[in-house]
Amino acid sequence: MPDTPSFPKINAERVWQRHMDLAKIGATDGGGVHRLALSQRDIEAHCLLDTWARARGFTTELDAIGNMFICRPGTSPEAVPVASGSHTDTQPFGGRFDGALGVLAAFEALETFEDHGIETPRPVEVAIWNNEEGARFMPGLSGSGAYTGALALDDMLACADSDGITMRSCVEQLHQALPHVPHRELGRPYAGFVEAHIEQATLLEEAGNTIGIVTDIQGNRRFEVEVDGEAAHSGTTPRARRKDAFIAATTIATELRRHFEANDPGDIARFTIGIFEVRPGAKSIVPGKVDFFIDFRHPSADALRVLGDEIAVIAAAHQGPCTATVREVSSAAPEPFADAIVTKVAAAAERHGYASQRMISCAGHDARFLSLMCPSGMVFIPCKDGISHNEKESAEPGDVAAAAQVVSDVLLELARQ
Amino acid sequence: MPDTPSFPKINAERVWQRHMDLAKIGATDGGGVHRLALSQRDIEAHCLLDTWARARGFTTELDAIGNMFICRPGTSPEAVPVASGSHTDTQPFGGRFDGALGVLAAFEALETFEDHGIETPRPVEVAIWNNEEGARFMPGLSGSGAYTGALALDDMLACADSDGITMRSCVEQLHQALPHVPHRELGRPYAGFVEAHIEQATLLEEAGNTIGIVTDIQGNRRFEVEVDGEAAHSGTTPRARRKDAFIAATTIATELRRHFEANDPGDIARFTIGIFEVRPGAKSIVPGKVDFFIDFRHPSADALRVLGDEIAVIAAAHQGPCTATVREVSSAAPEPFADAIVTKVAAAAERHGYASQRMISCAGHDARFLSLMCPSGMVFIPCKDGISHNEKESAEPGDVAAAAQVVSDVLLELARQ
Repeated sequence: MPDTPSFPKINAERVWQRHMDLAKIGATDGGGVHRLALSQRDIEAHCLLDTWARARGFTTELDAIGNMFICRPGTSPEAVPVASGSHTDTQPFGGRFDGALGVLAAFEALETFEDHGIETPRPVEVAIWNNEEGARFMPGLSGSGAYTGALALDDMLACADSDGITMRSCVEQLHQALPHVPHRELGRPYAGFVEAHIEQATLLEEAGNTIGIVTDIQGNRRFEVEVDGEAAHSGTTPRARRKDAFIAATTIATELRRHFEANDPGDIARFTIGIFEVRPGAKSIVPGKVDFFIDFRHPSADALRVLGDEIAVIAAAHQGPCTATVREVSSAAPEPFADAIVTKVAAAAERHGYASQRMISCAGHDARFLSLMCPSGMVFIPCKDGISHNEKESAEPGDVAAAAQVVSDVLLELARQ
Repeated sequence: MPDTPSFPKINAERVWQRHMDLAKIGATDGGGVHRLALSQRDIEAHCLLDTWARARGFTTELDAIGNMFICRPGTSPEAVPVASGSHTDTQPFGGRFDGALGVLAAFEALETFEDHGIETPRPVEVAIWNNEEGARFMPGLSGSGAYTGALALDDMLACADSDGITMRSCVEQLHQALPHVPHRELGRPYAGFVEAHIEQATLLEEAGNTIGIVTDIQGNRRFEVEVDGEAAHSGTTPRARRKDAFIAATTIATELRRHFEANDPGDIARFTIGIFEVRPGAKSIVPGKVDFFIDFRHPSADALRVLGDEIAVIAAAHQGPCTATVREVSSAAPEPFADAIVTKVAAAAERHGYASQRMISCAGHDARFLSLMCPSGMVFIPCKDGISHNEKESAEPGDVAAAAQVVSDVLLELARQ
């Protein structure tokens, strides 16, 4: 087998064009992508990837939770494969790079190996993890979670979207759309995993660096808060007699925000109230109930515990004449990535002269769950103004190519081991 | 014609039973009523009233906006009729008395005149005004508004509910459900109007009085506030880079509440935010937009002006990195009722020994628009704890009877003039 060049150069134009082609599926007028998990558009995206894979002689497989795998065989039939990938689903009105970059950088690596006739002992795969975003089916990361055993398959298949459509029926539709694709069992091991992703923040942009060498993924705690008051007529009920759930809930939200600001001078904590539902939601009715959702993330386990434990205390202290109930619905500890991957990412960046820095990942990613199964890591590139989960999300062709190059190098090193 | 008794006694058991029978249409498990304007249930309520009317020999009429009239003829064919009434539509999960009391007290008056063979020069009518609540079709009071010319018929018929169903198609369904009922033109004059209603506050209950003699109806101003920020990833976007529309909107709401509290030591102003919609409304997205609705009511025109004009100023001062836009969408000046009606209500209460007090109406009612057409007024009775627009809404049989008695007396005086 030819061993020159040891680390072949990826095709920058091709990987960029693949991004533009994939982004047409679910393209929005605002320049973004609206492609919810296993919607008809997302299934179409899977079909396109399958077509591209077969055109290059790769095989594809689907599993019971709707993950898709693109496989390039190795020379040692018994060797455990290595993989890279991410997801094709987007937030409602999300962008062209979140998820797509990780899938297409991995696919570019496979194409590059093919172009150069490179043979590896281990098989190399692209993994397209289902429902990473959690925008249509809660929770997110359900594809990589079910594959690695962190989440229960039956629970994930039973999840329903807001129209009552289950994940189970959507996975069936995916399989029906790709009837020639064989079935893969969940949990088949990997020897290593690397995921490329846009940073979704501005550290790289501000430093002028191209590659983020991700060392850890931050932890999170999520809470549901229910505030119960009493609905009343807005025109007749005096202030003194109201049990206005909106006032109680906004007071709690304001005090929580103050708490997180006061205890986080470095702007490290990520405290967000993204869902806030006021009921009954009528012009002339004092709200009787508010439900809201807190997403709190932090790289420090101590900070997650200390700051997060105060949420219920603050809610109780500011509930006024209403009743606030705080329920923690999920949590994840901060996760360090494997040195074996982190050092390979750093070496690849150095090899190609990409300016780089070490950083933590502030978002949850499929690599979090893969790290339960095998040595895993991530590669970040800048996205404009740090904006993602938004149609304005943007990345530079040169940075996309750098991500693909680093993924290609890391996969090749792993596949040769 | 017999003129004894001059003011016949109404049938307390009958008017209570009519309330219980009407409340079965749309009854909720929580003891309330869910009967949105011109829903199938509300049309069923109209049919029941038509059946009751015909059983007593009264005639009925329908107009182009879906108001229904139950008519007892007078002895002077050319005399302008007098009327009493209210509405059969309810808030979502409202109560058994809001609206129903005004309709059934008026119907009881007609039945009482019939029982006693009383003849009046003027015809006497029960008016059932369409879509008072404004819960299904915005704005409310559209039946009395279109009848009196305050609101444009075509605009009201073009209103659509949240499913896109127009008022026009619902009015057609009402007419189809009552094919034998003749058509009445809009705006046919009345010589006087009185409306019974539950107080929806606690002044009567706290004073231990039975009858509220309503002298004025408070004014209102309504505002829509749009707060525009920027959607962003909740896990990665630092506080310093966020344009969080939820934070801006809750800050504005909190400052508005402080403003109204500080300038209203007597608890007279009614300031309510009942609608507050956070977009996109996802767990892991910093909100990019909030729309909320302000309902501000006050009996003083000066206070409406001074306090209300500050809303846009406060919103601008607390919008932070976002942009807040305040738009006034409707307003109504405080409205004094006619002395001719107020004195008759007071005389009726005194005649029957009901403890009474003068008061203003804090809610909007159909009598507001009727006062544009003819001398108008209102009669209030207590409702338990002041609660209405709520399934818990409750009134005492004795108070319901008192309302019917006062309405009967006032109608009889007006019809004899």
